[in-house]
Amino acid sequence: MSLSQTSPLPQPEAQDFAAFLDLFERTSRIGATALGGLHRLTASSDDGEVRTLFCDWLRAEGFEVRVDAIGNIFGLMTFDPDAAYVMCGSHLDSQPTAGRFDGIYGVLAGALAIRRLARASAETGDKPLHNLCVVNWTNEEGARFQPSLTGSSVFIGAMPLQAALDLEDGDGITLGDALTDIGFAGTTPFDLPVASYAEIHVEQGRALEAKKLAIGVVRETWAVSKWRVSFIGEQNHTGPTPMAERKDALLAAAHAIVHVREESGRHGLAMHSSVGRMEIYPNSPNVVPSRTTLLIELRSRDVSLLDQGDRRLEARLKEIAAETGTRVIVEDQQLRQPGKLHETLSDLALQTCEQLGLAAETSVTVAGHDAINLSRVCPTSLVFIPSENGLSHNEAEFTSVQDMENGLRFLTGFLARLSQTSMPESPFISPYSHSGQS
Amino acid sequence: MSLSQTSPLPQPEAQDFAAFLDLFERTSRIGATALGGLHRLTASSDDGEVRTLFCDWLRAEGFEVRVDAIGNIFGLMTFDPDAAYVMCGSHLDSQPTAGRFDGIYGVLAGALAIRRLARASAETGDKPLHNLCVVNWTNEEGARFQPSLTGSSVFIGAMPLQAALDLEDGDGITLGDALTDIGFAGTTPFDLPVASYAEIHVEQGRALEAKKLAIGVVRETWAVSKWRVSFIGEQNHTGPTPMAERKDALLAAAHAIVHVREESGRHGLAMHSSVGRMEIYPNSPNVVPSRTTLLIELRSRDVSLLDQGDRRLEARLKEIAAETGTRVIVEDQQLRQPGKLHETLSDLALQTCEQLGLAAETSVTVAGHDAINLSRVCPTSLVFIPSENGLSHNEAEFTSVQDMENGLRFLTGFLARLSQTSMPESPFISPYSHSGQS
Repeated sequence: MSLSQTSPLPQPEAQDFAAFLDLFERTSRIGATALGGLHRLTASSDDGEVRTLFCDWLRAEGFEVRVDAIGNIFGLMTFDPDAAYVMCGSHLDSQPTAGRFDGIYGVLAGALAIRRLARASAETGDKPLHNLCVVNWTNEEGARFQPSLTGSSVFIGAMPLQAALDLEDGDGITLGDALTDIGFAGTTPFDLPVASYAEIHVEQGRALEAKKLAIGVVRETWAVSKWRVSFIGEQNHTGPTPMAERKDALLAAAHAIVHVREESGRHGLAMHSSVGRMEIYPNSPNVVPSRTTLLIELRSRDVSLLDQGDRRLEARLKEIAAETGTRVIVEDQQLRQPGKLHETLSDLALQTCEQLGLAAETSVTVAGHDAINLSRVCPTSLVFIPSENGLSHNEAEFTSVQDMENGLRFLTGFLARLSQTSMPESPFISPYSHSGQS
Repeated sequence: MSLSQTSPLPQPEAQDFAAFLDLFERTSRIGATALGGLHRLTASSDDGEVRTLFCDWLRAEGFEVRVDAIGNIFGLMTFDPDAAYVMCGSHLDSQPTAGRFDGIYGVLAGALAIRRLARASAETGDKPLHNLCVVNWTNEEGARFQPSLTGSSVFIGAMPLQAALDLEDGDGITLGDALTDIGFAGTTPFDLPVASYAEIHVEQGRALEAKKLAIGVVRETWAVSKWRVSFIGEQNHTGPTPMAERKDALLAAAHAIVHVREESGRHGLAMHSSVGRMEIYPNSPNVVPSRTTLLIELRSRDVSLLDQGDRRLEARLKEIAAETGTRVIVEDQQLRQPGKLHETLSDLALQTCEQLGLAAETSVTVAGHDAINLSRVCPTSLVFIPSENGLSHNEAEFTSVQDMENGLRFLTGFLARLSQTSMPESPFISPYSHSGQS
């Protein structure tokens, strides 16, 4: 740690708050819904439009813009070509009919914080130790293409580039083709060394609001067990077919959905569960469904609870298949281990809040974030600002201007500190920069 | 009854069986699936292709072809311009990945039976009392556009023409536009007087196969209670949102599906139930579903059982909404009363079988058919031929050539008899022939 904790930290000026709000309003209009929300799916034409607006803004503000092969956008502010980058960012895509803040806030706040730090450096002539970079990760939400966190997964080497490009949406369009269509299939070979990563995001919970805090510093993430399960029944006529002869894949799915909810019900607040998506075939009024595919999630801080839940789910799926005359196929089952954010960076984030007079506490995240991916390869911090009523993935999602400005104050100070902090870890260079993709 | 029950009945010749099989094979190729089935949704390009093939065949065989404003195709064989028509037919559309026989058999058998009777009349110079007509009803299946039985519903005046044209598929394409696209939005004002209607269809059950019968004469149909129900929940993040705060419309739907099956389970063989179709929004992996819409059916011969089932379903839907924090909306609820086919025609059908040496018994149908619609406006008969294992709406649906030839023998004899039978009822003229549509 080379920057004294008592050195004064650069802070946004009135023009920075104004520029942030202007950019936020302009981007919010792209994919806006009638109820004040946002519907901007990955690599849709709206996503293309907001990406173009963002890149134009970055270039006009002196950033160098690079787009990698999975469409991640990097806005670079380089002080020393030999130095590593402190990176911050989030995502500009949204869920269907969702809110304006989730993801978008982190990208735009990062861009404005870096602009302020670059201007401060230009005014004082002081060069930070690290360069700065704001990033927009492709397909964080996983709404149009599954799985989620695609861009950051490719970046950290957890998912092969080609596999990501080959992901298909519900109409069979690949992510690669969709990115090409909107002009964001980058071809730049990539060799950016990353010293650390910071992400600021709306909370998706009520803790900060309830405690009247400005900032939550996330130290750990819940584990998730994700299942992709299909039931195979038999198409038949819903009218004459005797009930005893039916092999109804939708009935089997209904029993599974009820079980999944009962599983989290056993564990009080310690487990969350969901079935957010299900495909049904042929989904025709007079036909007994022959195939259903469910995406099931069990989430907990405690992996042993997930183990128990997984075992009971597996047994119940077999029971259901036997009871309904269907066949069950577990197509995929993955445990995402609980994550730990970087201790030193979390301490530094709390100290930054204290110095700036922003009320802050340690927080926890249940949801996945690109920061969780980055935490596996470099020192990473994730912080939250409040979200009214904790509504998330909903058009009514809301964070006040005051809370967004507090977040921008924090991020500006925090990036200033990180850009002067030499870390013991070596900078991370994405493995796909060496994969020959160009 | 003007035709003696002992007069010899015209019967198909070898060339008729061959022509039937040829036409059946040629149409089966249009929309054929890899597993030997058929996928030919209403007003799809495949539906357009098979309609064109059928109309070309009719014209080449001397039929006059007319297409009405909802796309129903009528192949007329007119012996006396002032006489009413004996009509027979079924439908050329299919469910998704379904069988080759359901509907198609009735249309093609009707066409070949009429061709034989026209040739017989030309050879002998004997004119029947009634003219003959084969019909292909639009959207019997209701797979792409709901509700089912659209073409015959418009024809009998049970559904306004404009409402039918405005039906939308899942992509928002209207039936009217889809019919225009395939060239089957007819504009002919329609004034065909219908003396009686006969439909021959595969059984969709195992009774005929089990009893080794050639023909089942349907005397009555089950009643159906059809519900369209939506649950309204709240979009939220599947991760952080506490379970107690979720308003999960898919969980609510799952409980409803389980209840519907339990309801028919109370009544043994006396009730069938199904949820064949459900829409889920937004159906995205990390979002608690905010809306589900289910098509629920309870079927029974006994309307009082359906009354009980409807009352319990209504109560349970309210309970489920309260338990899951959702709101339930019953968007539509209709009772289709049990139907009676025409007694005299059913007797005549059984006598025809006896005279031709075809083993036959009285039968019952659970499924809806266009004949049920027609039975509300004119003397109507519905007969079945066997279907192996009773598989229906399935690619493996199968009826042997022998059984199809038996059906063609029956239909030829039966139409001969009907065309000589004067009915006490006045001929039916579709009300939309007077609606000014042109």
